[in-house]
Amino acid sequence: MALITLLTDFGIQDEYVGVMKAVILSINPGATIVDITHHIEPQDITQAAYTLKAAHSYFPKGSVHVVVVDPGVGGARSILALRKNGCIFLAPDNGVLTFLIQNNAADEIFLVENRAYFLKSISNTFHGRDIFAPVAAHLSTGTALSKVGPEADPQTLIQTPFPQPYINPMHDLVGAIVAIDHFGNLITNIDTTALRQFRRSQDDLDLEIVIGNHIIKGLNPSYANTPPRAALAIINSRDQLEIALNGANAAEYLKARKGDPVTLRIRSQGDVS
Amino acid sequence: MALITLLTDFGIQDEYVGVMKAVILSINPGATIVDITHHIEPQDITQAAYTLKAAHSYFPKGSVHVVVVDPGVGGARSILALRKNGCIFLAPDNGVLTFLIQNNAADEIFLVENRAYFLKSISNTFHGRDIFAPVAAHLSTGTALSKVGPEADPQTLIQTPFPQPYINPMHDLVGAIVAIDHFGNLITNIDTTALRQFRRSQDDLDLEIVIGNHIIKGLNPSYANTPPRAALAIINSRDQLEIALNGANAAEYLKARKGDPVTLRIRSQGDVS
Amino acid sequence: MALITLLTDFGIQDEYVGVMKAVILSINPGATIVDITHHIEPQDITQAAYTLKAAHSYFPKGSVHVVVVDPGVGGARSILALRKNGCIFLAPDNGVLTFLIQNNAADEIFLVENRAYFLKSISNTFHGRDIFAPVAAHLSTGTALSKVGPEADPQTLIQTPFPQPYINPMHDLVGAIVAIDHFGNLITNIDTTALRQFRRSQDDLDLEIVIGNHIIKGLNPSYANTPPRAALAIINSRDQLEIALNGANAAEYLKARKGDPVTLRIRSQGDVS
Repeated sequence: MALITLLTDFGIQDEYVGVMKAVILSINPGATIVDITHHIEPQDITQAAYTLKAAHSYFPKGSVHVVVVDPGVGGARSILALRKNGCIFLAPDNGVLTFLIQNNAADEIFLVENRAYFLKSISNTFHGRDIFAPVAAHLSTGTALSKVGPEADPQTLIQTPFPQPYINPMHDLVGAIVAIDHFGNLITNIDTTALRQFRRSQDDLDLEIVIGNHIIKGLNPSYANTPPRAALAIINSRDQLEIALNGANAAEYLKARKGDPVTLRIRSQGDVS
Repeated sequence: MALITLLTDFGIQDEYVGVMKAVILSINPGATIVDITHHIEPQDITQAAYTLKAAHSYFPKGSVHVVVVDPGVGGARSILALRKNGCIFLAPDNGVLTFLIQNNAADEIFLVENRAYFLKSISNTFHGRDIFAPVAAHLSTGTALSKVGPEADPQTLIQTPFPQPYINPMHDLVGAIVAIDHFGNLITNIDTTALRQFRRSQDDLDLEIVIGNHIIKGLNPSYANTPPRAALAIINSRDQLEIALNGANAAEYLKARKGDPVTLRIRSQGDVS
Repeated sequence: MALITLLTDFGIQDEYVGVMKAVILSINPGATIVDITHHIEPQDITQAAYTLKAAHSYFPKGSVHVVVVDPGVGGARSILALRKNGCIFLAPDNGVLTFLIQNNAADEIFLVENRAYFLKSISNTFHGRDIFAPVAAHLSTGTALSKVGPEADPQTLIQTPFPQPYINPMHDLVGAIVAIDHFGNLITNIDTTALRQFRRSQDDLDLEIVIGNHIIKGLNPSYANTPPRAALAIINSRDQLEIALNGANAAEYLKARKGDPVTLRIRSQGDVS
């Protein structure tokens, strides 16, 4: 099987996604194409990076992942093709692949420059169609990655800084909302590793999660075991701390936005509330 | 062909649907996956049930239908796998399968409990990825339905009550709007059988359909043979009575909402209007 | 490969698109189905025609393109099946195929009337399911186009008039915004041919593009080489003049709408601004 995934900010009202698939299937009629999403906010490189991170490891080895969130299209930015864990990733050099290239994590990285794999005519506005789609299709047929262009220097590639949780002077763990999903669930940048380290370091009788002026006591094992519309904290499917409401939209009810802080603190036995 | 359909309330902005497909294709690379919809209103079990009812019979025998509208995810609710008319349905035991299990209509029903078919790590928030997708994929490869777990007791399964049309003291047939589609068409719970019974029982010279303070005379054979933006009643593709506007959005223009009553009455020749 | 594309105004919240795929795969289990878009504005024949024009030529020969933007469904309108450049197009006779039939450009055109290829029961509201999908599936298996019904008379087919750019008394080229894409980019009806003819005819030292009370100087080679949120003009991927903002939504910022004029003028050296 040749599996190609698409992750873009193109939306689905125009012909853009359909045309990328047309180009892919013209070159590799047997390709299976899976949409990860086309609803990244326009030009939101950070959201694209998080979404790719959450999705890619579930696809089988040999998959070709194509990320086209590309505000620099038509300009001087490079296009990268890299291999990691037996999969190929194709994306502009603008930070969307940060999670894959940081700490020299990729197995090999090339600059996509070989026009033999592009469409003949290259527009200034739609490299998804003219470059990404045909190169992905050729790679999915077994074309060697090294044929797309010269090796890239990993030191020069653009990486996006992602906000990291930190310990404040009160010894609290301060994270942030980094994504809000379709249900209005608030996904933080506090993952299970950070949470474990934080809780291990103290006598954690009572974990409290503070968001805005809401205080949530402890973690919940499921959305359903709280009263309807009660705020809860849960470890989500990305292994990250999430703030949710049982059966309702947390972003709306808590008036929360991306970037808002989420603070974890341990309420010791001596505290008086 | 192994055909798997997906019907969820996940939306398409996040990686959720793409990841379900990743899991399916990892287990059964030859599966054909069709999205019925991912735009069920969050947690709207009734809408999911109606949509599944309208869709499933058009798919070929052997299809595996996966319904993940699952507010109880991570809690105590069971997951059902049932067979009916040569197809398999996989869904939480929360009423979304009511149309398939009422009157003991299913051929066999099992509880999905065999972890051999799950992903190794089961999150509390995304059983679509961790349980539904891999179980569906295994079933699509021919795994016997009985292997997913013990037989279910049909008497104990959750059924959703759907509003039924009734005859009021004025001998009118009173139904309700149960769905509003993308075009703003108002789909009622009055199907052709109910309509036939109603009309047969009286001298139906003039059928009138009343919605809000609009009175529609008779049924229309098509959207197009009325003046633009005129309200009309028509038997739709689900074989149900529908209120629509020619070339416009009935929900907006008539300010109609799900649950609003739709009354059918026979205006006899002696009536004076 | 049997490739079938779908281009509709059905949206994706209801079961409509999924059911069309169900019918197709019941008849041709090996079909590959690509969504061009389902987000044409309801009943917007012009938008559908432009979208089809922008997309179809990228699909491989043998593709079957199905367009269901069909306000006349259930009425007297015909359904057309035509062949052009080795592909088949199936659509209502309402103007959506104008670009393919004007100037007798189609190789052959038939009226779809042979009920042997329809579903047995034909609704009044959903020919996408009952006629378009099964006929497309049969054609994708190699059924001869001539079998769907009698030849159509090309002279009698409905064509939609598309606004054309023109030269005004000031010798300016006056076009119009004919589409606004997901990013808010404003797509005009001025293509590269019209632009070349306009510029060749004068001493074009300075091209100015006027939209509302904004004046844009010259064409840009890419979105990125202007200041953020600056308005720019660019030749887009449809080979048409497009007004865009670097990293922002031009339709919102410029308060532009479909139909708004876009004027090109040559500012000669002697002009005083």
